[in-house]
Amino acid sequence: MLFDAVVLANGEYPTNPLPLKILAEAPYVVCCDGAADEYIRRGNVPDVIIGDGDSISEDNRNRYSHLLHRISEQETNDQTKAVRFLLSQGKRHIAITGATGKREDHTLGNISLLIDYMRAEADVRMFTDYGVFIPCRDVRTFSCSPGQQVSIINFTARGLHGKGLVYPLSDFTNWWQGTLNECTEAEFTIEAEGEYLVFISFQQPPQRLSAKARRFSGETPGIEGIELYYPGWRDASFGE
Amino acid sequence: MLFDAVVLANGEYPTNPLPLKILAEAPYVVCCDGAADEYIRRGNVPDVIIGDGDSISEDNRNRYSHLLHRISEQETNDQTKAVRFLLSQGKRHIAITGATGKREDHTLGNISLLIDYMRAEADVRMFTDYGVFIPCRDVRTFSCSPGQQVSIINFTARGLHGKGLVYPLSDFTNWWQGTLNECTEAEFTIEAEGEYLVFISFQQPPQRLSAKARRFSGETPGIEGIELYYPGWRDASFGE
Repeated sequence: MLFDAVVLANGEYPTNPLPLKILAEAPYVVCCDGAADEYIRRGNVPDVIIGDGDSISEDNRNRYSHLLHRISEQETNDQTKAVRFLLSQGKRHIAITGATGKREDHTLGNISLLIDYMRAEADVRMFTDYGVFIPCRDVRTFSCSPGQQVSIINFTARGLHGKGLVYPLSDFTNWWQGTLNECTEAEFTIEAEGEYLVFISFQQPPQRLSAKARRFSGETPGIEGIELYYPGWRDASFGE
Repeated sequence: MLFDAVVLANGEYPTNPLPLKILAEAPYVVCCDGAADEYIRRGNVPDVIIGDGDSISEDNRNRYSHLLHRISEQETNDQTKAVRFLLSQGKRHIAITGATGKREDHTLGNISLLIDYMRAEADVRMFTDYGVFIPCRDVRTFSCSPGQQVSIINFTARGLHGKGLVYPLSDFTNWWQGTLNECTEAEFTIEAEGEYLVFISFQQPPQRLSAKARRFSGETPGIEGIELYYPGWRDASFGE
């Protein structure tokens, strides 16, 4: 089993088949209350609904009151409440989806919280419609496809160095500096001391690849190729 | 005149009436080449199209070749090429729109680049469908409406302190820590030494406001109220 649980957060409901598949196959689903209505409307029943309970329809609030875990604390957002709840249940392999795509300050907040979840011992990945964010510490290696686009966003890391990437890394001081890198091999490694985020884009039309990466690039797979094309979410950190 | 020019970037085409109005009334429009097709399809002609020219349709590339300013340099993205081009023309009051809403690493990159543009003496604001990002240095005051949501994202600032906001500020070390604040008055002030981003949300349904802010909150205006409701983009930095 890949994930102990999936958190469906308050952003845009996912449309990409990979997050939808992860959600459909999840052994345990926590909906932030703003997301519960749409999840239920699509014929599902969450295992838990978390939040302050003011973003769910009255109908669903009544019908699923036994699933509603109200946390009205104001210092954290619903995504964090959901992750903390899962950690308190011993569920630490967590996928988050539906966390981006609306207000950009929420998007920035939700993405940056991944670093905090890692500090709290969660093994967490955020699946968006475009790729996956993975909070990392020190040296990490990921599977990829040549030409696949990768961004590295530095938080506290020093000595950043990449292997299997088109552009060199350095100790970035602004977020954009590590974006839009590309894999040249079937895996890439980030060497560093400290914390950073990796974003691996699901796929990229070949005509958008740089000349250097294009040389290495094979076919861009369709939906059916995503698992093969994006094996990074099955890496060693999940104990396989 | 509020802006010398508007950059239409490669993200989602704006849908919110405020960025659409800014785009419609712009004295000068630079399209990043990925955005030019949609801008043209809607019956407009940009003043300049900037990029490496591989994201625009062949039809438009031929028809508007006289507007195409190709910059194939790989170290910067199209948004930055557009801003640099405008600065080289003496146009420094710049609005950016269409810069978010697709790949989240592009969104992070485009938002964080605002700090670099400020360092290059641009007076720049990014209008999304949800609000406006303003790169700031040191002490800044903005008009707002009580209850309006504000996020502060720290880059290099120390001594962060807010006036007219529900939650206190501190020297945030992670992006999320300054998100989801709220105005309590008709203006708010950030005191700091150094650089930070302010995000002012266009509007917020009253039922989503905290109890404390709700006490201060008036009506939430519709589309026709945006200018009145969101006067922050007319602040002193534009020399009015």
